[in-house]
Amino acid sequence: MYPPSIQKLIDLFSKFPTVGPRTAARFVFYLMKISKEEIEELINSISNLKKTVKICSFCFNPFEGEAELCPICADSSRDRALLCVIEKETDLITLEKTKKYKGLYFILGGTVSTFKKKDVEKLRTKELKERIETHPEIKEIIIATNSTTEGEATALYLERLLKKNLPAGRQVTRLGRGLPVGAELEYADEETLGSALESRK
Amino acid sequence: MYPPSIQKLIDLFSKFPTVGPRTAARFVFYLMKISKEEIEELINSISNLKKTVKICSFCFNPFEGEAELCPICADSSRDRALLCVIEKETDLITLEKTKKYKGLYFILGGTVSTFKKKDVEKLRTKELKERIETHPEIKEIIIATNSTTEGEATALYLERLLKKNLPAGRQVTRLGRGLPVGAELEYADEETLGSALESRK
Amino acid sequence: MYPPSIQKLIDLFSKFPTVGPRTAARFVFYLMKISKEEIEELINSISNLKKTVKICSFCFNPFEGEAELCPICADSSRDRALLCVIEKETDLITLEKTKKYKGLYFILGGTVSTFKKKDVEKLRTKELKERIETHPEIKEIIIATNSTTEGEATALYLERLLKKNLPAGRQVTRLGRGLPVGAELEYADEETLGSALESRK
Amino acid sequence: MYPPSIQKLIDLFSKFPTVGPRTAARFVFYLMKISKEEIEELINSISNLKKTVKICSFCFNPFEGEAELCPICADSSRDRALLCVIEKETDLITLEKTKKYKGLYFILGGTVSTFKKKDVEKLRTKELKERIETHPEIKEIIIATNSTTEGEATALYLERLLKKNLPAGRQVTRLGRGLPVGAELEYADEETLGSALESRK
Repeated sequence: MYPPSIQKLIDLFSKFPTVGPRTAARFVFYLMKISKEEIEELINSISNLKKTVKICSFCFNPFEGEAELCPICADSSRDRALLCVIEKETDLITLEKTKKYKGLYFILGGTVSTFKKKDVEKLRTKELKERIETHPEIKEIIIATNSTTEGEATALYLERLLKKNLPAGRQVTRLGRGLPVGAELEYADEETLGSALESRK
Repeated sequence: MYPPSIQKLIDLFSKFPTVGPRTAARFVFYLMKISKEEIEELINSISNLKKTVKICSFCFNPFEGEAELCPICADSSRDRALLCVIEKETDLITLEKTKKYKGLYFILGGTVSTFKKKDVEKLRTKELKERIETHPEIKEIIIATNSTTEGEATALYLERLLKKNLPAGRQVTRLGRGLPVGAELEYADEETLGSALESRK
Repeated sequence: MYPPSIQKLIDLFSKFPTVGPRTAARFVFYLMKISKEEIEELINSISNLKKTVKICSFCFNPFEGEAELCPICADSSRDRALLCVIEKETDLITLEKTKKYKGLYFILGGTVSTFKKKDVEKLRTKELKERIETHPEIKEIIIATNSTTEGEATALYLERLLKKNLPAGRQVTRLGRGLPVGAELEYADEETLGSALESRK
Repeated sequence: MYPPSIQKLIDLFSKFPTVGPRTAARFVFYLMKISKEEIEELINSISNLKKTVKICSFCFNPFEGEAELCPICADSSRDRALLCVIEKETDLITLEKTKKYKGLYFILGGTVSTFKKKDVEKLRTKELKERIETHPEIKEIIIATNSTTEGEATALYLERLLKKNLPAGRQVTRLGRGLPVGAELEYADEETLGSALESRK
């Protein structure tokens, strides 16, 4: 129904996360309204992305610059005894905003819902094991996946994997469960409430 | 917190309709994951958009081709006595999907919430008046704005504008109000329900 | 887990429309907090309900008083040529609030999702047919069920039933479909939008 | 618009927690439909409530029977060193369902949003202080209010009140904060996430 070049772009935008065909169409009509200069700015920014942005060789965090390591991994004031394993890049930003964590990160690159080889291979588990083995200064690996079903399955898989042959003096931990800000007891599930009771202080 | 070239692209995507900074960040990380070929395909599609897509000289609908008029306006089987005035491009697609309308369209290009000159000038009212004056075959102008506050204000403004000096044999109409599919009387507002009663059949 | 007399009352309140066990429990604790006088007032009101409230012998609307007919049916200024068939008592109030309807009502007492005899028998169809047959002054029967799936099925059933052998000069109508107040074209389904186009004015 | 005895009952039901006039009307029409026997069963249950249900002299939990204490307070297997302070009766049920808590309870009877005398006096703080003073076996007081704004304000008030002159060997604790089951890091607020990091294990 749309002309081919509009439909083509709708299809491409529809692959973006959270975007359906209706929103994709609105994106295209937005692009048709903005100026040539703005279009060029967008195209240049997309085109430069892969050129200027590098992936940190330790944690897989994207960054810019000449270095091998991202600013967090290169920051000598960070606590190298802590390694926080997260699902994706935005989780790093979310955790940094809390200002409560001073260790390093490792971006796993996804989650699994099953332990099938084919699924598990999409995660950076080989790289994670290698980092832990070659960095004896890491004393605690914090698995900070979501507490969704997929996040839990992934955490369980990682726990099994990492606890096997774990040298003395190193531990694998998980984020604490409990009542979030704003929650009412009445609507909390039993597991959350049980954790909130156990972790009282 | 993000490297500059990522932040720049987050800012550009945040200007897209319905996109906030969090979604914009997900877009950027999506782009970082896809292949060079896919990036190029996206860039080419965006870049070609303004080159291949023309705006119909009658209805302002975007289309491709050598012609002056879009396929709908050029289609001799459409009923030239009907002109449906809509807010934006996607509304045309929405109405076409109903397969209940066989007339022509006119894309107004927006809505107004006030009748201030500065607001009203953003709409293509001059062009709309010109179309009606130079096309005596148009017998009915259907104002098909949303029934939101802004859409209603715009419809009211257009009605006043078009009904002034309207030649005999021409009329200005509005979309019918009533109960939508799935609605319960109990939750319908009084105006909707009153219209549903009046337009019973 | 609750003491028996509390659990008993929770069970009874759980049968109320829209009430689940959690809300029912809150009702019981509310009752435990209010004064003896308030409890008595509630009990008396419930107990008086069936004593003081009668059901109109024409339309099944509940009312108080010595009369046979409810105030609406007894009101000589109402238009006796119109009979509006509604699902339930609250729909009558909803329609009265629009101040757009001046005819009489008939409360059907429910909806059906199938045309099975067992389901259809729960509706007051026999009484409805009887009203229409014995009141030749009724010229239009307006079926004003919800436009939900169940409401539509019920309307379809009634239409078939009433149109069979319908004397000349009498008609069966339905509430008009269209865009409700506040709706956007973009999110309207095709049927609603098609009706809005057809009922334009 | 409704007859007085219906309107009266709508007004009374509208005072029930979470019930508005529309739901209250549905309750009344539900009562009009059920049998005389069912009405009587409801009236008897409401009327018996205050007669058969007693309030526990220790924890304010409602129960039935001859005893002074509710089944939980009377249960010799419960851990008398723990006292869990909760807002309302249903929170007790919610916590019992987790099967993770084996101590006693104290129902505070509400929350405060300010520390004004008039507000604070609605809570059973005097009784709470008395329980703690006369029961030296209580070693830990767990404040288990909601983590809503009001729940937090109440917890803060209680902490200040109870920690003043708290004898050695007794402590006041709070439920643990953290990620609830099903939560995603991305949508967690910074305080919740910070707590989840701190309480990792």
